[in-house]
Amino acid sequence: MQRTLLAVATATALFGQLLVAQPLRAAALGDATDAQIAKIVNEGLSHSQAMANASELMDGIGPRLTNSENFDRAADWALGKFKTYGLSNIHKESYPFGVNWNLDSWDAKMVQPRAITMRAMPVAWTPPTNGTITAPVILAPMSKKEHFDKWRGKLSGKIVLVSLPGEASQSEKPQFHRLDGKELADLDKYDLPGDESQPYKGFSKSVAFARELSQFLKSEGAVAMVRKSYRENGLVSGEGYNIDPAKRLVLPFMELSSEDYRRLARLETTGKPPVISLEIAAHTNDADTSADYLIADIAGSDPKAGYVMAGGHFDSWIAADGATDDGVPSVIVIEAARIIRSLGAQPKRTIRFALWSGEEQGLLGSIAYIEKHLATRPVDRNAYGVERFATWATQFPITKGPDYDQLKAYFNLDNGAGKIRGIYAENNIAAEPLLKKWLSPFAGMGAGTVVGSRTGGTDHEFMQAVGLPGFEFIQDPLDYGSRVHHSNIDTLDHAPPDDVRQAATVLAAMLWQAANSDAVLPRPPLPTAPSKSNPFRIDDPDKD
Amino acid sequence: MQRTLLAVATATALFGQLLVAQPLRAAALGDATDAQIAKIVNEGLSHSQAMANASELMDGIGPRLTNSENFDRAADWALGKFKTYGLSNIHKESYPFGVNWNLDSWDAKMVQPRAITMRAMPVAWTPPTNGTITAPVILAPMSKKEHFDKWRGKLSGKIVLVSLPGEASQSEKPQFHRLDGKELADLDKYDLPGDESQPYKGFSKSVAFARELSQFLKSEGAVAMVRKSYRENGLVSGEGYNIDPAKRLVLPFMELSSEDYRRLARLETTGKPPVISLEIAAHTNDADTSADYLIADIAGSDPKAGYVMAGGHFDSWIAADGATDDGVPSVIVIEAARIIRSLGAQPKRTIRFALWSGEEQGLLGSIAYIEKHLATRPVDRNAYGVERFATWATQFPITKGPDYDQLKAYFNLDNGAGKIRGIYAENNIAAEPLLKKWLSPFAGMGAGTVVGSRTGGTDHEFMQAVGLPGFEFIQDPLDYGSRVHHSNIDTLDHAPPDDVRQAATVLAAMLWQAANSDAVLPRPPLPTAPSKSNPFRIDDPDKD
Repeated sequence: MQRTLLAVATATALFGQLLVAQPLRAAALGDATDAQIAKIVNEGLSHSQAMANASELMDGIGPRLTNSENFDRAADWALGKFKTYGLSNIHKESYPFGVNWNLDSWDAKMVQPRAITMRAMPVAWTPPTNGTITAPVILAPMSKKEHFDKWRGKLSGKIVLVSLPGEASQSEKPQFHRLDGKELADLDKYDLPGDESQPYKGFSKSVAFARELSQFLKSEGAVAMVRKSYRENGLVSGEGYNIDPAKRLVLPFMELSSEDYRRLARLETTGKPPVISLEIAAHTNDADTSADYLIADIAGSDPKAGYVMAGGHFDSWIAADGATDDGVPSVIVIEAARIIRSLGAQPKRTIRFALWSGEEQGLLGSIAYIEKHLATRPVDRNAYGVERFATWATQFPITKGPDYDQLKAYFNLDNGAGKIRGIYAENNIAAEPLLKKWLSPFAGMGAGTVVGSRTGGTDHEFMQAVGLPGFEFIQDPLDYGSRVHHSNIDTLDHAPPDDVRQAATVLAAMLWQAANSDAVLPRPPLPTAPSKSNPFRIDDPDKD
Repeated sequence: MQRTLLAVATATALFGQLLVAQPLRAAALGDATDAQIAKIVNEGLSHSQAMANASELMDGIGPRLTNSENFDRAADWALGKFKTYGLSNIHKESYPFGVNWNLDSWDAKMVQPRAITMRAMPVAWTPPTNGTITAPVILAPMSKKEHFDKWRGKLSGKIVLVSLPGEASQSEKPQFHRLDGKELADLDKYDLPGDESQPYKGFSKSVAFARELSQFLKSEGAVAMVRKSYRENGLVSGEGYNIDPAKRLVLPFMELSSEDYRRLARLETTGKPPVISLEIAAHTNDADTSADYLIADIAGSDPKAGYVMAGGHFDSWIAADGATDDGVPSVIVIEAARIIRSLGAQPKRTIRFALWSGEEQGLLGSIAYIEKHLATRPVDRNAYGVERFATWATQFPITKGPDYDQLKAYFNLDNGAGKIRGIYAENNIAAEPLLKKWLSPFAGMGAGTVVGSRTGGTDHEFMQAVGLPGFEFIQDPLDYGSRVHHSNIDTLDHAPPDDVRQAATVLAAMLWQAANSDAVLPRPPLPTAPSKSNPFRIDDPDKD
C-alpha cells in the first residue's frame, strides 16, 4: 500500500491540478482493480519508457509517410517493441493504398536578384525534378479551371507560383496553450447531427484540381509549380494527396514558406521576375501500391467477452519527424501495452493495439480495418485516398462484420502530445457514466472530464459512423494546432515528457478497466440513412 | 482645407483608436504649422513610397551586415534615394570597425543515422569550412574555461556541440501583440539611474569566451563548433561579435535550430553519435576594416538655429533580410525625408537624416558620429566592437564637440516595424511638455503618449549618455521581440504596411515641428561621474 500511496502522491506532485489536500482517488474505487490501477500509475509515471522509445522512433528513424520505405523501417521497429513487451498475434494487415513514394532530398534557392536558400518542402507524391531546375518565376494564382485562360501562352519555361500571396496575418492569441476549466466545460455539449450528404466534397475537388493544374501547366510548357505554405514564420508542411497511380501529378510541385513565397511574389510584381532553382530527388516503387497497419494483442482470459482496443496512426507527413502527429501518441499506445504487460495479470477481455497508416490521406488504414473486421458499406473499394474517404460514411446500408459485436471499446489518441484532459463521449449519452467512472482516478492528473460533444478527423470517426463505441481523448492543445501539426517543426521537442507519461498512464488504465469491467459501453442503434433536419431545405448546387 | 479634413479622416479610418467622433486635432493647433502637418499626413498616408522602397531594399538587396559588400550595395541604394528626393550634404562617414566579412552560402545536414537537411546559420565572422566537413558530433557543453578539462583529449576529429540542449520551453503569451492603454500607462515612470560601473561586462566576457573556446577546440583537433539557437520553432539567427582582425574565431562556428540541435543531442546521449556535414562559404577583405554610416540633410534657413536629426541603423544581421531590424525603420527615415521635401518649404533648422551601421555590434556607428561631432570621452579608440561599446558610457569627463550645442533633437527608430505609439522621455522630465505638444496631432493615430521612462540598446542611447536630447519612439511590439528580431524570418512580411505609413508620417511631423519650433527641448546638465546610490555597497567581485 505504501507503493500505491507513493505512486498517487507522485502523480499529484507531477501533474497536480489541485494543490490542496484531496482524497486518494485510486484508493477510493474500492474493488480489485484499485491495486492494479496503482501499479499502472507507478509503472507509467516512475518507470516510463515512452520518451526513450519516442527518441528511437522520431530521432533515429524519422518521418513515416504511408507506403514508404521509412514507414516499413518504423513498422519493423514497432513490431519489435510489441515482441519485446511480450504481446501476441503481432502482425501487419495490408490494404490497397496508392503509390509507394520516397523523398530522398530537396533544395530551393533564389538565384536572381540575389542568392538565398529558401525554406521549402516538396509536396508529397510529387514527381522528382531529375536534377536542378533553374528558371524565372511567374506569379499566376489559379484555384479553379476558369483561371487557366488568363495564363494560357504565358507559362512556357517558367516556374509557376500558383498561390495568391496574400498579406501576412498573425494571430494575437497564444500559440501554446493548456485548457482551463471553462474551456473543458464548454466542450460538454450535444452536437446535433448535421445533414451534409458529402461533407468532404470540397477537399476531394481540391485534390483533383492539383492534378488538373499540373496537367495544364505541363501542357503550357511550365517546368515546375510552387505553392505558398498555409502557415507563417518559416513553417512548411508539404501535404499531398495524389496517391492514385493512374492520376499522378505530372509536374514537380514544391511548397515554399510564406516569407520566401511572398518575397518572390513582391519581386515579380514590381520588377524583373526572380530566377529560382528547385531540386527534388524522390523515387517510387510502382509495383507496391498496398499499405500496412500493425496489430498486436494482449490475450484475454475469456474468449466470449469480446475485445477492447487502442490505436493511433503510425504514419506521418514528411516535413519533420511526425512527432506530435502521430508518432508520440503511437509510442504512447505501445507504452500502454508495456505498462499493462508489467502488471503480470491477464485481462478478462483481449486488449488489441493498432498502429494505423494512411490516416493522413483519409483514415484509410482504419477504414480498411473496419471493412475487414467490423462493418462494410456499399462503397467503391477501388477508389483511392481522398475519393474513398470523402464519401465512405455517407453510404447505407451498413452490414455488420465478424467483430462488430466483439469490439467493446476503442480509444484513439491523435490530438498531439499534450496530456489527456478527458474524453469525448461522441453524442453517446448512455456511455458517459462508465467513461466517467473509468477516468475518475485521474481527475487529480487533470484527466477526469467527460464531455458530450463529438470530434472528427481521427481514426475513431468511422467506427462511430457504423455505431461502434470508438472514442478520442481530449488533450491539452499545446502548440499542436497553432504551428506544429504537419509542419517542419514537428519534432520531439514539442512533446513535453511529463505530458507523455501522463497520457500513457491514463490510456493504460482506461484499457485495463474497459477490459475487466462487468459493464460494457452501451451503443446507439445500427445507423441508417438519416432524414434531413429541415425537409424543406434545397441544397445550393454550387456549394462544395 | 478639404484636403486637410480628408487626410485626417483617412488617418482616423486607417488607424482609428477611437470610433467615436473627435476633434480634428491637426486643425486645433492654431498656428502656421497646422497646414504643413496636414500636408505631411496626406503625403505620408495617401502617397507613401515606404513599402515600395522597403521591397527594393529588403527583397532586392537583402541583409546588410556592417562592413560587407552587401551593406555597400544597400548604401549606394540609400544615397541614391536621398539624391532622388533632393537632399543635400549626402555623404558617408567612415570609422574603424573590424573585418570585412561576406557570407556566400551554407548548408548543414545530418548524414547518420539518417539524412536530414537542418536549419542552420553560420555565426557571423566565422571562418569558412573550405568545402564540406563531415564528422561525428560530440555533446560537450562549455560556457567557461573551467569546463575545458572535462573534454580534453576527447574532441579530436569531432564537430563539437557546445551548448546545453536543455528542454524546449514555450511561452503561453501571445507572440504578436499591440500595446493597450494600461501597458502604455505603465511605461510612464521615472527610472532611477543605476550605478553599475560596467553594465555590459558579461556581454564582453562572453564574446571573448567564444574565441577562447574556438582556440581550445582547435588545439584539441576538433573540426567545427556548433551552438543551439536561443529561439524555438526552427528559428536561427547567427549573431557573432568577433570582428577584431587580431582576435578572430579560429574554427568554423555554426548555429542550429533548437529542434535540430536537440535531436543531435538526444541521439548522441542515447546511442551512436550522429554524423553531420557542415558547409560555410564566406570571404573576407582583410584590407578593409572601416565601416560607414550615411548622412543627408534638408538644409535649414537659419544657420544659427542648430539642427534636428532622425536615424535608424541601416546594418542588419545575416539570417534573413533585416526587415524589422532595422531596414524598415531605415526606410521610414528615408520616407520622412521624402515627405518633408514634398512640402516644398524650407525648415528653420537643418534636418539631418542618419543611417547608422555597426549598431548590432555595439552602437558603433552612432558612437563614431558622437565622437566626431558631438562629444568625446576618455576611451580607447582602438578597442574593437563590444569592447569599445561596453565601457564607453562609463568614462568621464565628457568633452563637448563642435555640434554639441547645435543638436536640438534626435529621434531614433529601432523597435521593429510596429506603428508609433509615443515616445520615451528618457528621464528628461523638462522635455515632456514639448514632446507632448508635438505628438498631440497624432493621438488619433495611437501615437500620442509621452512616458518618462528610459529605453536602451538603440542609437539614441549614447547621445543621452552625454546629456543630449536623443529619443527613441514607443512602437507596437507586434512579433518583433517574440520571434522576428535577428532571426531567419525577419522579412518584409513582418512589417504591416499600415504601421509603416503611420510611423513615417509621425516621424516626419515630429522632425518638422522640432525644426521649426521657437522652443527647443531642454537638456539636463552635462553628465559627470555619478555617486553611488548606496555609498556602503561593496560589489561582488564575481558578478558579471
